[in-house]
Order: sequence, then C-alpha cells, then structure tokens
Amino acid sequence: MPGRNHLFVPGPTNIPDAILNAMHVPMEDHRRPDFPELIKPLLEDLKKIFRTEAGQCFIFPATGTAGWEIALTNTLSPGDKVLAYRFGQFSHLWIDLARRIGLEVECVEVPWGQGVPLDRLEQRLEADSAHEIKALLICHNETATGVTSDLAGVRRALDAAKHPALFLVDGVSSVASLDFRLDEWGIDVGLAGSQKGFMLPAGLALLAFSPKALAARHRAKCRRGFLDIQDHIAQNADGYFPYTPSIPLLYGLRKAIDLLLEEGLEQVYARHARLAEGVRRAVAAWGLKLCAQEPKWYSDTVSAILVPEGFDARDVMHCAYHRYHLSLGAGLGELAGKVFRIGHLGDLNELMLASAITGTEMALRDCGIPVTPGSGIAAAAEYWRETAPPLAPRR
Amino acid sequence: MPGRNHLFVPGPTNIPDAILNAMHVPMEDHRRPDFPELIKPLLEDLKKIFRTEAGQCFIFPATGTAGWEIALTNTLSPGDKVLAYRFGQFSHLWIDLARRIGLEVECVEVPWGQGVPLDRLEQRLEADSAHEIKALLICHNETATGVTSDLAGVRRALDAAKHPALFLVDGVSSVASLDFRLDEWGIDVGLAGSQKGFMLPAGLALLAFSPKALAARHRAKCRRGFLDIQDHIAQNADGYFPYTPSIPLLYGLRKAIDLLLEEGLEQVYARHARLAEGVRRAVAAWGLKLCAQEPKWYSDTVSAILVPEGFDARDVMHCAYHRYHLSLGAGLGELAGKVFRIGHLGDLNELMLASAITGTEMALRDCGIPVTPGSGIAAAAEYWRETAPPLAPRR
Amino acid sequence: MPGRNHLFVPGPTNIPDAILNAMHVPMEDHRRPDFPELIKPLLEDLKKIFRTEAGQCFIFPATGTAGWEIALTNTLSPGDKVLAYRFGQFSHLWIDLARRIGLEVECVEVPWGQGVPLDRLEQRLEADSAHEIKALLICHNETATGVTSDLAGVRRALDAAKHPALFLVDGVSSVASLDFRLDEWGIDVGLAGSQKGFMLPAGLALLAFSPKALAARHRAKCRRGFLDIQDHIAQNADGYFPYTPSIPLLYGLRKAIDLLLEEGLEQVYARHARLAEGVRRAVAAWGLKLCAQEPKWYSDTVSAILVPEGFDARDVMHCAYHRYHLSLGAGLGELAGKVFRIGHLGDLNELMLASAITGTEMALRDCGIPVTPGSGIAAAAEYWRETAPPLAPRR
Amino acid sequence: MPGRNHLFVPGPTNIPDAILNAMHVPMEDHRRPDFPELIKPLLEDLKKIFRTEAGQCFIFPATGTAGWEIALTNTLSPGDKVLAYRFGQFSHLWIDLARRIGLEVECVEVPWGQGVPLDRLEQRLEADSAHEIKALLICHNETATGVTSDLAGVRRALDAAKHPALFLVDGVSSVASLDFRLDEWGIDVGLAGSQKGFMLPAGLALLAFSPKALAARHRAKCRRGFLDIQDHIAQNADGYFPYTPSIPLLYGLRKAIDLLLEEGLEQVYARHARLAEGVRRAVAAWGLKLCAQEPKWYSDTVSAILVPEGFDARDVMHCAYHRYHLSLGAGLGELAGKVFRIGHLGDLNELMLASAITGTEMALRDCGIPVTPGSGIAAAAEYWRETAPPLAPRR
Repeated sequence: MPGRNHLFVPGPTNIPDAILNAMHVPMEDHRRPDFPELIKPLLEDLKKIFRTEAGQCFIFPATGTAGWEIALTNTLSPGDKVLAYRFGQFSHLWIDLARRIGLEVECVEVPWGQGVPLDRLEQRLEADSAHEIKALLICHNETATGVTSDLAGVRRALDAAKHPALFLVDGVSSVASLDFRLDEWGIDVGLAGSQKGFMLPAGLALLAFSPKALAARHRAKCRRGFLDIQDHIAQNADGYFPYTPSIPLLYGLRKAIDLLLEEGLEQVYARHARLAEGVRRAVAAWGLKLCAQEPKWYSDTVSAILVPEGFDARDVMHCAYHRYHLSLGAGLGELAGKVFRIGHLGDLNELMLASAITGTEMALRDCGIPVTPGSGIAAAAEYWRETAPPLAPRR
Repeated sequence: MPGRNHLFVPGPTNIPDAILNAMHVPMEDHRRPDFPELIKPLLEDLKKIFRTEAGQCFIFPATGTAGWEIALTNTLSPGDKVLAYRFGQFSHLWIDLARRIGLEVECVEVPWGQGVPLDRLEQRLEADSAHEIKALLICHNETATGVTSDLAGVRRALDAAKHPALFLVDGVSSVASLDFRLDEWGIDVGLAGSQKGFMLPAGLALLAFSPKALAARHRAKCRRGFLDIQDHIAQNADGYFPYTPSIPLLYGLRKAIDLLLEEGLEQVYARHARLAEGVRRAVAAWGLKLCAQEPKWYSDTVSAILVPEGFDARDVMHCAYHRYHLSLGAGLGELAGKVFRIGHLGDLNELMLASAITGTEMALRDCGIPVTPGSGIAAAAEYWRETAPPLAPRR
Repeated sequence: MPGRNHLFVPGPTNIPDAILNAMHVPMEDHRRPDFPELIKPLLEDLKKIFRTEAGQCFIFPATGTAGWEIALTNTLSPGDKVLAYRFGQFSHLWIDLARRIGLEVECVEVPWGQGVPLDRLEQRLEADSAHEIKALLICHNETATGVTSDLAGVRRALDAAKHPALFLVDGVSSVASLDFRLDEWGIDVGLAGSQKGFMLPAGLALLAFSPKALAARHRAKCRRGFLDIQDHIAQNADGYFPYTPSIPLLYGLRKAIDLLLEEGLEQVYARHARLAEGVRRAVAAWGLKLCAQEPKWYSDTVSAILVPEGFDARDVMHCAYHRYHLSLGAGLGELAGKVFRIGHLGDLNELMLASAITGTEMALRDCGIPVTPGSGIAAAAEYWRETAPPLAPRR
Repeated sequence: MPGRNHLFVPGPTNIPDAILNAMHVPMEDHRRPDFPELIKPLLEDLKKIFRTEAGQCFIFPATGTAGWEIALTNTLSPGDKVLAYRFGQFSHLWIDLARRIGLEVECVEVPWGQGVPLDRLEQRLEADSAHEIKALLICHNETATGVTSDLAGVRRALDAAKHPALFLVDGVSSVASLDFRLDEWGIDVGLAGSQKGFMLPAGLALLAFSPKALAARHRAKCRRGFLDIQDHIAQNADGYFPYTPSIPLLYGLRKAIDLLLEEGLEQVYARHARLAEGVRRAVAAWGLKLCAQEPKWYSDTVSAILVPEGFDARDVMHCAYHRYHLSLGAGLGELAGKVFRIGHLGDLNELMLASAITGTEMALRDCGIPVTPGSGIAAAAEYWRETAPPLAPRR
C-alpha cells in the first residue's frame, strides 16, 4: 500500500526521525568505563520530565505493565490494603494486577467517562482514621476513555485528611505530554512507558520514586526479583544497570529527553492541549460526543469518541484502517464497539492530525454515520489558525 | 518543530521507509565479482519502467540536468538544429542548455499553461522537407506549470510528416508516475531523475535510448566525457560502471523498481490520476484556477494553482512553510508569485494529501484569500470516497 | 575516535546491518487486524530455534533476568526446593533470584571453571526418593567462566533416577549459538535473551516451555503479574500480546530467525565451534590458560582467559578499550582481575575475530605480559585456513 | 555469509555509522527558505578541507570523473595544450578524458610506480618560454599504484620557471586524507570525490577553485552545460544549487566535515600515515614489494603490492573475497594480475586494518605464496604499539 500509514492510536506513538536515527547504533559494552557518562545525566534529566528534584528515577527494560508492578511490590507487602478507582480498562488492569500479586484492593467503581471523584476520595480518607489504606492507585490519564483526573486535587484530599497513604500514579499516557509534577503534587511513585509521550518504542518502564517511596522498599515484603529497584539503586549509583540494558532505547531516551527539554515542557503541554482542542472541535462539528462526560475530564492526549446508537465503532476503525491506512484506537472492555479513539500525543503537529480527522470523517461517512463533509477539519483548522503563534512577514 | 514536515513540492518526493532502509547499507566494492548480479537485472528492470524492450537503459550518477545533456550530446553534433517548445521553466532550461552546448534551437513560444501544440508541430515537420530538424525536444510534463503534453500525438505528427527527427523526451516528472511508453510511442531518448516518481533522493539520471538513438552516438560529434554513454555501454555489458557508482542509490533504485512493479505500473498511473483529481476538486471548491488552461493539459503529478489578482503566491508558501511545516512548490520564472504548486507524485496516499490540502487552505485563509473552511478537503475526500475500491465487510 | 569499535563482550553482540535496518521502522498499531500475520509465524519459528515441536514459546518485553523469574514463578510455588549448581556469576545470580522470590535452593558449589558434575547430580537425584526436589536450575553456558555443561547428560541423570523434577535451563548464551534441543533433551523451560545468539539489542526474554512446564503453571503459586505466561497464552492464541510489544524488536527477531534458519542451525553451531577453536589456538599460542579446566567444558561462545600471576586482567581490558577500541569482557565476581573474556558468538567471521585476537595481543604486550607478536593470530589463522571450505578456482 | 564484510578497496571507503545516520533523512525542499543555513556554512567549511581561504568550493552531484571534466572545461578552451604525466590508471583516464573533450595533451610517460618527475617537469616548463602549456594535470595520489607526488615540488617548478600554467590537481584519493594545501601550494583547481577521504558514498564531485581558476572561466571556451560552475556561482551565493541536490549527501557531507575538523586535519593526516606505515611493515615482513618504487612515492592512502613472479594477484583477491569476505583492490590496466591493493584511507583504525592484513596473509598462503604466518600482523602491530599515544593508567 503506497504512502505512509497514519498512526493515531494512543500509543505506540509516532517516533521522530531523529529518535529513530539515535536508536540506529551498533551495540556496545554496557560495562564500558565511559558508559556512566551516558547514564548518569540520563537518569538526572529524566527527573526533569517527572518534575522531581527530591526523588529518584529508574529505567527498567520492561513495559508500563511492569511499571505498575514495580510501583506496588517495591513499596507494599502482601495483604496491604490499597484504594483504587476503576473507570476504564487501564485502571481496571492495574487493579487486577494488584490483586494477583497479593494486595487487598478496595476498588471503587466510577462511571467510565469520569475520573477520580475527589469528594468521595476525601470522605473515604477521612473515614480511614486507622490508616488501613496503605496506598492510593491513581490512573492519571485513563487511556481507554480519554479522561484525565486531577492529581493536585488528590494531593489536596490526602493533605486534608492528613492521610499517610502512598500516592502511586499511572502516568503512562500523561507524563511528558500532560502537566505532571511529582514533587509539587506529592506523588510517591510516578510511572510511564516509553511508547507514549516519550516517542519511543515500547520497552522501557520509566519511574520516579519520592524519598518516602524509596524508604518504603525496606519494609515492603512483596517478593521482588527482576523488578526490584534495589538492584538499580546499587548499580545506577555508578552509572550502570543490574542487567543488560537496551542500548538503542537508552540512546533513544537520551534524544527524546533532549527534544522535550528543547521544546520546553510547558510548551509540550500547551501543544498537546491545542492540538487536542482542535480534535474536540472536529468531534463537535460532526455532532458526536466524547466518552469523557465533562470538559474537566477531557484528556489532551486521547479522545474516545462515541458512535451514535445503532452503529458499531469497529466498523469505523475497519474502514479507516483498510481503506485509508489510518489506525484508530479501539474501544476496550465495556466500551468495545461503542467508541473509537484518536490518540493525539507525542510527536505531532496540526497537519498530521488533519490526516486523522479527514480519514475519520471519511470512514464515518463510509459507515453511514451522517457527518457533514469537511465539517471536522474546518472546525479544527479554524481553531488552530486562530491560536497559531504570530508569523513574521515574508522578507 | 515537532512532528513530521509535509513535503509537497514536485520533487524531491517523499521516500518510502523501505527505500530509506534499502539505502542504509555499508559500502562495498563496485568491482566485486558478484556485483553484476545486482546490476544486470537492475538495468533490465529499469527498461520495464520506461516501457522499452528494444532500447537500452543507463544509470548515470548525476541529475536530470545531466540527463538533458546526455540525451543531446550522445545523439547530436554542434550546429545541429533541434525543435523545442518553451512553455515553462523546465522546457526553458533544456533549451538554454541545448544552446550552451552548441545546438541551434528553434524555440517555439507557447503560453505557459499549455503544452505541445500538435497541429503546429505537424505543420512545421511537414514544412521541413529537407529534414533540417535533427531532433525534437519535448518536455512531457512541464513541472513548472502542471501541464502534460500528448506524446502519442507527437509521434503521430512525426509519422504523419514521415520525419526522421529524433524524439527526445524529458520525462523527469512523468516517468514512473504518468503513462509513458518508449517503444510504443517511438521515443528515442527518455530521461528521468531519481527524485520524482522513483521516490529516491536526487543523484541519478536515468535514461532509455532507442536503437536509433543508440546508433546516433557514432555520428554525434558533441564532445563527451563524463556523460558519454559509450563508457557505460562498454562496462554495463559486464554488469559494471565506468566510474564509482553510488551504492546506496543502486540499492534504493532496486527497491524502488520492485515497489513500482509490485504495485503495477498501470495501478501506479491510476493512483496518481485519482489522487490528482482529488486535489483538482479541492482547487475548484476553493474557487481557484489551475495554471493548466484546459483539462487535456492537466498534470497528474503536479498542480500549479493561480492565486487571485492582488495576492502573492509566495505569501501563501511562506505561511504554509513557517506555520504549518508544509512545503509547497514555488512559481518559477515568469510565474513567480503568481502560482504555488502542489506536487502529488511518488509515494502518496489520500490522507497524506489531506495534510497538503488542509495546510494550503489554512495558509490561503491566513493570507486573506477567501476560501470556505473545509471546502477543499470536503471536495477531495468525497471524490476519493466515491472512487475508493470496494471493501470487504468486517469479520 | 575514528573507525569502528570492536565489540567482543559475550553480549550484547554485534547486530548485522540487516537486523538494524529491520528494526528501523515507523511505529504501528499492535492491535491492527493483520498484526497476527507477523506474530503467529514468529512464535512458531521461534520454536525451531529452541528445537521444540511439543512446547510453546513466549516473547516477553524484558531481559534474561526476567526469563529466570518467568521460568521459576510460572512453574513453582514458594518454599519449593530446587537444586542448582553454582560455578560462575550467572549461575550465582539465578540462585540468588530464586531465593529472593521464595524458593528453597539447594546450592551445590562447583569450582569456577567446571560445569555440572553429572555423577554427583545422578547420586543426588537418586537419593531424593521423596522427590522433594521440584526443579533443576541448570546454566547451560556459564558466560562468566566460558564453561558449557552437558544438558544431554543432565537428562540422562534425571532419567536414570526416574526423577520428575522440572529441568529448567538458562540458555542465554547458548540458544541460537550452541547445540540446544528442548524436546530431545527433555528440557522443561529453556530461556534466552535477545542480545546474544539472536544478534539483537537486549529487551526480549525468549522462552520455550514444555507441555509439562506449561501444565505446572496451574499449580504454581508464586505471585505473578507482568511475568505471568497465562496472559501471553490467552493473547498469543490470536496473534497478539497482553501489553504493548516493542515493534522494532519483533521485526528484528523476525529477521534474526530468518538469518539463523537460512544459515541453518547446524551450520550456525559449526561456525561458532570453528571460530571458537581459532580463539583457543591463539590463547594456547600465547601460553595462556582458559578458565575452563578441561576441553569438555570449553564454551564455543565465550572464552575466559586467565592472566598470569602478578598481572591484573583489568589492565589488559583498560588498554584494549582505550588504546585499540576493543571491548573485552571483564572477570566477574570471584574472577575479577583474574580473567578477561572474549565473546565469540553471534554475527561473526574470521576476520572480525582477527581484530579481537590482534587487539588482545597488543594489549597483553602493552601490559608486559610476554606473548610472542603475531603468535595468536598465526595459530588462529592457520586453523581457520585448514578448516575453510573448499573454494572453486577463479574463472 | 555471517559477519561483516571487510572493505579495503581504495574507495568507496567505510562509512562511519554517524554519517550513515546523518544521511538517513526524509526528503526536504531544496528551495526552502532556511536551506541556505545548511549550504552556506557547508561551502565555507569545505574550503577548510581543501585548505583555501582565497578560493571557492563547489559541490556537484556527480563523481570524480565529472570533477576532472569540470576542472578542464571551466578553465580551458578546445585545442589548449596541457601537460600531464601518465603513471597509472587514473592519470591515464584523466588524460584520455582531456583528449576526448578536445584538449591537446602532452602526455609524459613515467614508469608505473613513480610519480611526477620534478626535474623533468622544471626543464619542460622552462623550455616552454612561449607559455603554450596552459595547464598542468597532476594526479596527486595515483590510486592504481599507491604513489603520491610532491605537489609542493610542482609548485616550486612552476615558480622556478615563472610559468603561468594552471595547476590542476586530482586529489580524489588524497584530499581529506593526505596533506593538501590549495592556497599554500598555489593549486588552481583541486578536485575530490565523496567516496574516499570524505567517507561518503560516491555521488559528489567536490572542487576548490583558486581566484585565478575562477577567472579563467570567462575565457574558457569548452562547452559546458551540467558541469558549468557559473550556474553554481550564481545560486551558491544565495545558498542554493542550480539543480536538485542529493539531500542525504549534503547532510552526510556536513557530518563528514564535522568529523574531520573535530579530529583535526593534521591528526587525520598523521593517522593515515601511521596506519599506512603499519601496512608497509606487514608487506615487508611478508617479503613482498610495493609497486611504489621508493619511499618518497609511498602513498598513505593505498598500497599496491606486487605478487611474486609466477603468481596472479587476482587469485589472491579471489580467495580473500570468497573465503574471508575481504575486498582488496585489483591491479588496473597494465598492473592487472601483478598487484593487489589495500586501501587504508577514510574511517579506519588499527584493528580494522588487522582484519585486512590477516585476511591478506591467509589468502597469500592459500595461493601458495610463501609468507610466514603472523609475520605481517606482528610487524604492523608492533609498529602501532610503539607509536601509540601514551595511555593514562587505570584508575
């Protein structure tokens, strides 16, 4: 099939050529004497992305799923009670994993399309005067529904209740794309994967631990082998890893962090917000609704879009993929067939999203869903035009 | 600037990843004993792209400009009269080069926006009963104006006049994209560059010579060194080149020809035609006009679009490039400021062009040119939807 | 530093250009409908490398360390007794990990430089009439000492004792390089990493489970989250993965398996043996000794070479690296400073090893270790010459 | 065939990974407004490699053969007499080309294995009191014989004779590898190709013109089209090219110049000299002779090695290539079968050359040529060890 594929799932995201090239390297000895010159600054600069100075970052040769487990097993013991909110497939899976490794999860069901209910959270924390809840498991951005929760609000709830629970955050589809502040928000573990905002292939679980979370490892009795941060702490101090790292991903991560810091994190967040709003304008122009139920939940990295009653979102995706080489994200779990998703995170600009919007519109019409031709892109493009930075006139 | 650049100049064109990878190779000895296993089939398969069985192909480590010179110097002698039509910057430059190397060019001025005037051509050939015209120089697709001439008609004119002139064709922006038939149309030299329909970087002049043109080299007295086909004829016979070839471009060309033949040349032509018509529908929906004055001249590889009176096309390009990372082709020569061009050739599909159309529309509006938001993409997308191949239902 | 680095650590190994290119790909949706066309044959062909038809293979986005844990936690329960031999840093680390995840390891100390003592193994198995030993942990090729153990002998010992223990094998530096036969030798779990014989970057733990080992998962009570094969079994059946895979590594693995099968596994083994013997001839010519104490232990993937008394192997490595851009493997654990290692596995040929041997010799002499100039390469080259396949005369 | 090929022809040379990656780029518009930010510094920095401040550099999308023609046609007129020395295949071919484009060449035969005879040159120049000789054509480093001529001596001869002839130099296998000083030695045109010391694929003819040579273009009557520097002069002034350049080669050239300047040209020259001397020590240890007849002619970029009477050098090459994946350079022209060549230029270090020396030795012995095993590498390695820079002790 001629021409480029158009990848708009919410991860893996499009990899910039500069990163692909940075990963195209011969292998090298990960015990070489000058390897720390690569690793030490990398671990330090990764902290800037998580926005922590007090904490410590880890790079595991694994995925975000491993990140969930690292966050839990290095801070908790079997039988510990944790509080979690279930409002999408990924919050669901984290809860499932927590149970499988022996934690007692108090799972609060929240309608899919909403995020963490701060009022109920605060009440629950205040009620837990015995501090039986050892940790909160919060999915910052629920990738399945396109819902972003208010982490600053969670911290306020914890503070209001004077509750010492660890604040563990899945930032897989938020870190490096959405505003995320480990230190300021008192997050104890933030975890991410390489294949979203970091614009890399999957293969790295990236984590930041607060000093409190680091200290918790000494008491945490969950069995740990491959995923034990202790081995990393020991080796990272000298600029090495406890087992063979992926050389290409380390160089890729170096380049990714460079790109993010060059653009500036605030600008990265602003870019995501502006591009996302364009997509939402298109959705509105089509007369469709987001899964996210209120603007306060809208995610700037992924939009889950409901198809009208009587249609199956999988037909839209089928058509988009086979006819227009456009990959959209599927509805997951209880949303299967009800939504499709447009990922708008990572290395993107307006005209890349123009492909996604146009292709979606074509697929919607092919499936008989009545949207006005050109309406989506007109709404998005006008928004982007209005919010474009000023341009110096041609010399 | 985050995200991909959007390249829609009419060359160099977008290189498929498969070709970029095919070119990412270590160097090798171009005199190695098994090198002919690469070269001999490559030269044979290149003939399929030019659609010649009787002729012979050449791969020069140079550009299309060199191709012009190769076509002329290997077939003609200083002082020879050639007939050429000037209807755009590239037909102009070929004529200029012909004069510089000592040919006498009878240059016929044709309005820019038209192609070869077949009736006048036939009259001129018939008038030349002494056969003073030794060659016709025909630019198949004038890249500057988006005009395609009728090569079959040129052949008919030659045949009608029983004129023996060599039929030399600049196919730089047509070969491998537009219908081109060396043998059937009695073309004596067809020349192309690697950076258009072949989807490669610039750096190769690709030529096909008919037996008649090959024979002409023995009489042609133009001085020839680097650009002499004789050295290639001698070395190609054994599968080698007379001077060091570009190893990456040879592997790239191998891959490009494979891709073209896998898709099928007829399908390649049809794809270009369908994508081009979408662009033209967009232009019409914007209320703008093509430089090409009649549908029979419309090029399926590039559209030159006139901006309304009072506007400067360079402002549109400036805005597209700096604001939306979209590269459009400039108006050249006497068209500077009057047109911008959208290249729609090479490795392209609908949603890539959706970026070009959307970005053009945004830039037009930014410049104050009154086009209806979404009108262009709506027209193009509906055309592409209507002409899309049938899709099997989802299983 | 100009010129190529010379990488001769026993992993990561040199990646062929064809694999580097196969990994240089844009990202794609790992849930796309045609993804199984990549994954299903990949999992099947991986079985050919492990030489199993009855078993099932798994591809985890992790490393060999994770492979150790996957083998254990999916087949065993906390408190289970396992028998293991400690004769090098990697057998040591596997034992350490087994203890950390709650297994009771009966660790038999074996001098470093020897492998599994088959007679003592058979005695121990026969003595265990109650079958308290639930699994054997065998490191096929101890990368730290350059010692290969006799897996067929281990199977004979199990059979002789009619012992039902699971036979778990670390094949990290043997699979795809040394003779390895899962089915024939009755291995229950074989595990490998991508960065050795598979000629890829680190990042994949590759495993093969026998039917017996697969069945064991239902009784195995070790806690499992990220490393649970059950999630893979469920998703692999349809050609998908339970979490985002590394797209580049999957394409790289596809290419690696293609290369291995094209060369033929028997030929791959034979090539490693022949290249290794050349290195050993060089070592003998230098008057140095291998850590491996007898020829029956000699590893064809890595040679650990003892420096004479009074010298520190780290000085040899220091000199090789900084002066000649040659990476040698360090002595690990109790061998630190006593040995350096030459990895001779993966994508190698004679003249690549000539660099390693020459550079080692230069570094030895720079450090004052008295070796005769040219002696090593002379011995290796003559051996390789004598054993080179016949060559057709020049035409 | 597993493992890396070993490329030791004197061009194309091994490309550093950093350059291969620099060339792996998407295409871009060569008329984009910020293109001059790439081109202008590139043309300036290229002058540093040719060591000219007064001159002007040109980058032609062609090869060294074109460079010969560019040097001649832009400075001379048909019928002009030029003086040239023929002492190898490449000096031969330049002379042949000069004749084909209409120059009158006074060709002085010099034994192959010697370079420019300075005494005879000075006599000839002094005898030419009418200044009929318009240009000297000097091949700085004759790649076919491994002979370097004394350019400073040529300049002294010109000065001694007060002769105004243009001093045109083929520096294809010298520039960026051997000491070359355009301004200081009063060279009027220096020409190079991209595929030697510049460590790039073939595809660029790189030239430096002195002010005198630049001025000569106004009088030079040779016909010029594609190879006319005038078009470059016009477009380069603004940072553009007269026809589509090869984007990858431009980025590759940028990287190559960066690497050369980072290493430092003096260090580049010194490295070539030191590596070359190692090769010569190996040749001497084998008891073989160079084609270059005296040390003053020895080339530091290529060694042509004579095989003993009764042997055919092509058998050595055949064996090296097919058995050891080693590409050696062939004997050309009258040296066919008598010599093979080892190229030792470009991105090389000691241990890369160890492969070449070892493989050559193996092939020599396979062919029955009696050389002592290990003798070559022993001699080379000891020389390199003795001349290695001091190394700080291990911390």
